[in-house]
Amino acid sequence: MTKNTNIRISLPAVCLVWQIAMIILFGVFVRYNEESDARWIEHLKEKNISSNIENDFYYRYPSFQDVHVMIFVGFGFLMTFLKRYSFGAVGFNFLIAAFGIQWALLMQGWFHAFDNEDWKIKIGIENLINADFCVAGCLIAYGALLGKVSPVQLMVLTLFGVTLFAVEEYIILELLHVKDAGGSMVIHTFGAYYGLTISRVLYRPNLFQSKRLQGSVYHSDVYAMIGTLFLWMFWPSFNSAIADHGDGQHRAAINTYIALASSVLTTFALSSFSQKHGKMDMVHIQNATLAAGVAMGTAAEFMITPYGSLIVGFCTGIISTFGYLFLTPFMENTLKIQDTCGIHNLHAMPGVLGGVIGAITAAAASESVYGREGLINTFDFKEATANRSPSVQGGFQAAGIFVAIAFGLVGGALVGGILKLPIWGDPADANCFDDEVYWELPDDEPDNISVSVHPNPNHVRSVQQE
Amino acid sequence: MTKNTNIRISLPAVCLVWQIAMIILFGVFVRYNEESDARWIEHLKEKNISSNIENDFYYRYPSFQDVHVMIFVGFGFLMTFLKRYSFGAVGFNFLIAAFGIQWALLMQGWFHAFDNEDWKIKIGIENLINADFCVAGCLIAYGALLGKVSPVQLMVLTLFGVTLFAVEEYIILELLHVKDAGGSMVIHTFGAYYGLTISRVLYRPNLFQSKRLQGSVYHSDVYAMIGTLFLWMFWPSFNSAIADHGDGQHRAAINTYIALASSVLTTFALSSFSQKHGKMDMVHIQNATLAAGVAMGTAAEFMITPYGSLIVGFCTGIISTFGYLFLTPFMENTLKIQDTCGIHNLHAMPGVLGGVIGAITAAAASESVYGREGLINTFDFKEATANRSPSVQGGFQAAGIFVAIAFGLVGGALVGGILKLPIWGDPADANCFDDEVYWELPDDEPDNISVSVHPNPNHVRSVQQE
Amino acid sequence: MTKNTNIRISLPAVCLVWQIAMIILFGVFVRYNEESDARWIEHLKEKNISSNIENDFYYRYPSFQDVHVMIFVGFGFLMTFLKRYSFGAVGFNFLIAAFGIQWALLMQGWFHAFDNEDWKIKIGIENLINADFCVAGCLIAYGALLGKVSPVQLMVLTLFGVTLFAVEEYIILELLHVKDAGGSMVIHTFGAYYGLTISRVLYRPNLFQSKRLQGSVYHSDVYAMIGTLFLWMFWPSFNSAIADHGDGQHRAAINTYIALASSVLTTFALSSFSQKHGKMDMVHIQNATLAAGVAMGTAAEFMITPYGSLIVGFCTGIISTFGYLFLTPFMENTLKIQDTCGIHNLHAMPGVLGGVIGAITAAAASESVYGREGLINTFDFKEATANRSPSVQGGFQAAGIFVAIAFGLVGGALVGGILKLPIWGDPADANCFDDEVYWELPDDEPDNISVSVHPNPNHVRSVQQE
Repeated sequence: MTKNTNIRISLPAVCLVWQIAMIILFGVFVRYNEESDARWIEHLKEKNISSNIENDFYYRYPSFQDVHVMIFVGFGFLMTFLKRYSFGAVGFNFLIAAFGIQWALLMQGWFHAFDNEDWKIKIGIENLINADFCVAGCLIAYGALLGKVSPVQLMVLTLFGVTLFAVEEYIILELLHVKDAGGSMVIHTFGAYYGLTISRVLYRPNLFQSKRLQGSVYHSDVYAMIGTLFLWMFWPSFNSAIADHGDGQHRAAINTYIALASSVLTTFALSSFSQKHGKMDMVHIQNATLAAGVAMGTAAEFMITPYGSLIVGFCTGIISTFGYLFLTPFMENTLKIQDTCGIHNLHAMPGVLGGVIGAITAAAASESVYGREGLINTFDFKEATANRSPSVQGGFQAAGIFVAIAFGLVGGALVGGILKLPIWGDPADANCFDDEVYWELPDDEPDNISVSVHPNPNHVRSVQQE
Repeated sequence: MTKNTNIRISLPAVCLVWQIAMIILFGVFVRYNEESDARWIEHLKEKNISSNIENDFYYRYPSFQDVHVMIFVGFGFLMTFLKRYSFGAVGFNFLIAAFGIQWALLMQGWFHAFDNEDWKIKIGIENLINADFCVAGCLIAYGALLGKVSPVQLMVLTLFGVTLFAVEEYIILELLHVKDAGGSMVIHTFGAYYGLTISRVLYRPNLFQSKRLQGSVYHSDVYAMIGTLFLWMFWPSFNSAIADHGDGQHRAAINTYIALASSVLTTFALSSFSQKHGKMDMVHIQNATLAAGVAMGTAAEFMITPYGSLIVGFCTGIISTFGYLFLTPFMENTLKIQDTCGIHNLHAMPGVLGGVIGAITAAAASESVYGREGLINTFDFKEATANRSPSVQGGFQAAGIFVAIAFGLVGGALVGGILKLPIWGDPADANCFDDEVYWELPDDEPDNISVSVHPNPNHVRSVQQE
Repeated sequence: MTKNTNIRISLPAVCLVWQIAMIILFGVFVRYNEESDARWIEHLKEKNISSNIENDFYYRYPSFQDVHVMIFVGFGFLMTFLKRYSFGAVGFNFLIAAFGIQWALLMQGWFHAFDNEDWKIKIGIENLINADFCVAGCLIAYGALLGKVSPVQLMVLTLFGVTLFAVEEYIILELLHVKDAGGSMVIHTFGAYYGLTISRVLYRPNLFQSKRLQGSVYHSDVYAMIGTLFLWMFWPSFNSAIADHGDGQHRAAINTYIALASSVLTTFALSSFSQKHGKMDMVHIQNATLAAGVAMGTAAEFMITPYGSLIVGFCTGIISTFGYLFLTPFMENTLKIQDTCGIHNLHAMPGVLGGVIGAITAAAASESVYGREGLINTFDFKEATANRSPSVQGGFQAAGIFVAIAFGLVGGALVGGILKLPIWGDPADANCFDDEVYWELPDDEPDNISVSVHPNPNHVRSVQQE
C-alpha cells in the first residue's frame, strides 16, 4: 500500500541534468542587452541619452524586487498554512521558482528578446521581471497540488509549464497584440487551469486518509498571513512592473492599490456573514483579499478610473469568498478536482474576470479620455496595429482569454498524463500533506506533534507506566 | 454576564454599506492627476519635461512601498505578540487599514488635492502615501485598544479617526504652514491621544478576568519582531516619503537611520538595567527601539545634523523604555487608561517630543546653515509665508503640537462615547484578548493550548482515567 | 560550575558609554554631504545638474533599503533556527548591527569620506550602504558564535570588527585598487575568518552539555526561512548597491540573480542525495542556497556573462552543501572550531572562491568585450591606475584575498584573546543556546517547552500526584 517515495536518485538527477542544460543553453544563447553591457557608456553617447538614470534599471528595479518578494516569500508563505507541510510549501516553491526563472529567461528570450543579427538572447531587468511572472503561473498550479505531489513531479510541471506559458504568451501578446501587463490571462488564467486540470488527472479518491493533516494550526495560519500581506502590498508593483514608463506604471499602481483595498472589505463581510456568530475564516482572509490584484491584471494600466477599480475589488472579494464557501467543495465532490489552496477562487475566476474587464475597458477607450497620443501609447496602436480601433482591440483582448484557458486545459491534460506515470515518487494517500515524506524533520517533532496537536491518551499512559 | 459578540449582521452591513459609499463618492469625485493620466505624454511635451523619469512616481514609489509594508506588515505583526490574539492583530489591522486608505483618499483629497475647475480630486502616488500615513493614526489608536474591541468598533474608530485626521492635518499643514513630513504631530501625537482617550472612556475595571491571555508566548514574541524590524528598517522611508525632492528626501532618510540606530542601544541598556541579572525584556526591544522614528518625524527633513539625530535617538530610547517600566502601570492603575501595546510610550511621548524638537530645529534655522534658497525650499517660505522668519516658524510648529493633542483628546472623547453604546458586539472582560470570539479557529487549537501553554492537571488526569 | 552571566551593569554601561562616544565623535566629525545638505539646490545650479533625480539618493535608495532588510531581517531571522535561541538571534543581531553602523560611519568615513578642507566626514546614501556592509562582517562572525557568547562580548566583537574592517577595506579598495562591490573578500572572507578564529580561541570542549538545545524545532525552521528568503531575494541589490551607475548596477543585479537561481538546484540535489530516501535537510536549504550571492560579490559587476554566473552558482551550491555535510563536523572534532551557523560553508569558502573568480574575470577582461571606455569605467583605470592592464588588475585582486584572510585570522586571534577574559558574562557550557540566560521569557514558556518539546515523565507524574 505504501508507495515508494524515495527520490534520492531521481531528484538529484533531474536537478543536476537540467541545471547543466541551462548552463549550456545560456552559454550558446544568453548575453547582456545594451543597458546591462559594459558598452552602455558608449551607447549613451551614440544615442545622445542624457544620463545613466535613463537606464531601464532605474525605472523597473524597485518593482522587480517587489515582484521577486511576491514569488518567493508571497507564494511560498501563503502555502505554509497546512499544519505539517510548511517545509514543502516554502521549500518546493523555492526550488521550482529558481529552476523556472532560468528556463523562462530562455523560452521567453527566444520569443521576445532574440537578436536576429547574432542569434543571441539579450537580457536586462525587464527579462528578469518577465521570468518571475512566467514562473508565477507554475507556482499557481502548485497551489492546487500542494501536498500531493513529489518535488520531481513539480520540476516536470515547471519545465512544461514554462514552455507552454512562453508559447501562450507569444500568441496572446505578440500575435494577437493583446495588452496584459499584470497577466490576468497570461499568468493567472493559464496557471490556474493548468494546475486544476493536472489535479483532475491526478485525482485521489482516497485522499481522506490524510484528513488529519489537511487543516491548519494557529501558528501556521499566522505564517500564511506573511505570504498574504506581501502579495497584497506588492501587487501594485506586480501590475505596474512592465507597464509603460511614466503614466502607465503610475496608473497601474494606483488602480491596483484601490481595487485591493476594496476587496478586503467585501471579503471580511462575506466571510463573517457565512459563519455562525459572524466569525471570520482565515482561509478567506488569506486568499480572497488578493483576488482583486488578479482581476486588475489586464485593466490596471488602462483608464479604468479609480471608482472602476473599486467596483472590480468589490466584486472579486465577493466572488472569491463565495468560491471558497461553495465551489471548492462542489468541485472536489462532483468534478473530482482537489484544489488544496483554492486556486480556482483566487486565480481562475478572477483571472477570467480580469480578462473580461480588460476587454470591456479596452473596447470603451476613446480619444476624448486618453488623448490621441495617450491612446496610441497605451494600446501600442503602432506599426501592424496602427489602424486598430479600441473596439477591435476589445475583441482581441477577449480572444486572449480563450487562448489562455485552452493552453491551461490542453497543457494540463498532457502534463497530468505524464505525471500520472508511477515513477515520480509521489506520496501515498495517507501520507499526503506530510513533510515527513520528503524532509529530514527536527528530532523532537513527532513527540511535539503527538502531544500538542492531538493529545494521545496512550502516549500519556505509557509515560506514566515507565 | 457574557456579552453578545455576534457581529454576523453588523460587520457585513458596515463593510458593504461603507464600501458602496466609497464607490459612489469615488465615482463623483476621484480622478487621476496629470502624472497618472494617459494624457501625461501630451503634458510632457507641453511643459517641456525632459523625460518620463521626472514623473513623481519614480521619486516616491520605492518609499511608498516601504510605507505600505510598515502599515500592513509592520503595524500588523507588531501587535501579534499576544498569545491568542494574533489573528485579530494582523487581521483587523488589515481590515481597518484597507477601509481607512479609501476614506483618507477622499478626505485628504477634498482638503489638499481638490481641483476647483472641475470639482474633482486628482490623485497620484503622493496621495497614496498620504492615505497610508492617515490610516497609521488609526492603527496607532488600535494599539491601545487591542483585544478589547470588536471589528465593528474598529471600523467606526477608523471612519471618525480619518475624518478628524484630515481636518487636523489641514489646520496644521495648510493653515499654520507647519512642516511635519514624518508626522510626529499630525500622525503620532494625534493617533496616540485619540486611542488613549478612547481607551479611557472604554475603561474596563474587570479586565483582570482575561489576565491569562494578556501575555505573550515565545513564538508570538518572535512574530512580533517581524513587525518591529520592518517598522524600524523602513522608518527612514516613512519620514522621507513626502519630503522635498532631492536633498529633502535624502537628509530625512539619513537622519532617521541614525536616530533609530542610537535608540536601539539605549533601549537595550535600560531594559537590561531594569531587570534582575540584566535580562532584557522583549516588550522594550519590540517597541522602544522604534520611538526614535516617531521623534524624528518633524525634524528629519531639517538640518538637525547627524549628531543631533543621535541625541534624539539616545533620549527616546530611554524615555520610551522608562514609559513601559513605570508609566504604563501608573496609567492603568491611577488614570484608568488601559493601553495594550503601550502606545503612550511609543507614539504619544515621542510624538510630542518630535514636535518640540521640530519647533526648536526650525526656530534655530539660519541662512548660514541652509543657504538662502535652501531655507526657502526647506520651510516653504513662499507666497503666504514668504516673510516668515525661522523663529516665527518655530512658534507655529509648537502650536501644531497643541492642535494635534486637542484633536486627539476631543475626538477620542467623542468617539469613545459612541463606542460605549452597547450595540457594537465588543467582548466581555473575560473574553478579551481571545481570537475565539471573532475568528473560526483551527479545530485542534483548544487542545493544543490547554496542553502546551498552561498544562491543566485536570486534563491530564481525565486522560488517565479514560 | 555555573558562570556569572549577570550583565546588568556591564551591558548598560557598554551601550551607554559607547553611544555617548558616538554622539561626541559625530558632533566633531560628521556632516551631510552636498547631496543631502540644504545647499543642494544651489549646488544643482552651480554644477548645472539638470534635475533632482540626479541626486545619488534616487540611484541607490531602493538598493539601500533591500540591503537594510538583509542586515536586520535576513541575518536576524536566518539565525532563529535554534529551538530556544530565537530572541538572542534576532535581538542581539539587532543590537550589534545598530551599534556597528554608527561606528562604521565614522571608521569608513575617516578613510573614504574625509574632507581635508574642513576635517569633516560628509555622509550620504552611499555611506549608509557601506555602513550596512561593514556591519555584515560582524554579523557573519556572530554566526559562528551564536548561542555561546554574551551580548557584551558581541559589542566588543563589533567594535573591533568594524575597526579591522575599515582598515582592511582601505588597504584592499584604496591602496591595492581592487574592485569588490559585493564584498566577497572585504565582507565575507574577512567576516568569516574573523568569526571562525574567535570561535577557535573560545573553544568549549564541554559544549555537548547543551546538546539538547542545539537543534531546531519545526516552527523555528520556518522562521529561519524568512531570513533565508529575504537574503536570497535581495542579494542582487547587495551586489549592485554600490556598483557603478548605469550598466554596473544593472549587470551586477542580473549576474547575482542568475547565480543564485542556479545554486538552489545544486543545493537541493546534493542535500537530497546525501540523505536516506532522498529527504532534504533544512540546514542546507537555509544556507547553501545563499552561497552563490557570496561568491558573486566581486565578479557580479564584471562581464562574467550569464552562463559564467550560472556556473558559479552551480559550483557554490555543491561546495557549500558539501561543507555542511563533511567539513563542519571535521572542523568541530579535529580543528576544534565550533561553528554554530556553518559560516565556513556559507561565507568563508564562497568568499575566497568569489575572490578567485573575481581575479580571473578581471584578468580575462579585454577591450573587445568591454569596449575601451567600458573597461576604464568598470575597473576605474584612471589616475593612479590609468596604465594598469587587466592581467595586473587580476593579480591585485588575488592579493586582496590574502589581505582579507590575514585580517580575519590575526584580528580574530587578538579579539578572541580579549573575549576569553572571564569578565564578559558569557554562559556556562550547559546554558549555551538558551534564551533563558539573557532574556525575560514569557511565563508559560518553561512548561510549554518541557511538555511539548521533550515530554518529561516526571513532570506528568508530579501533576498526577497533586
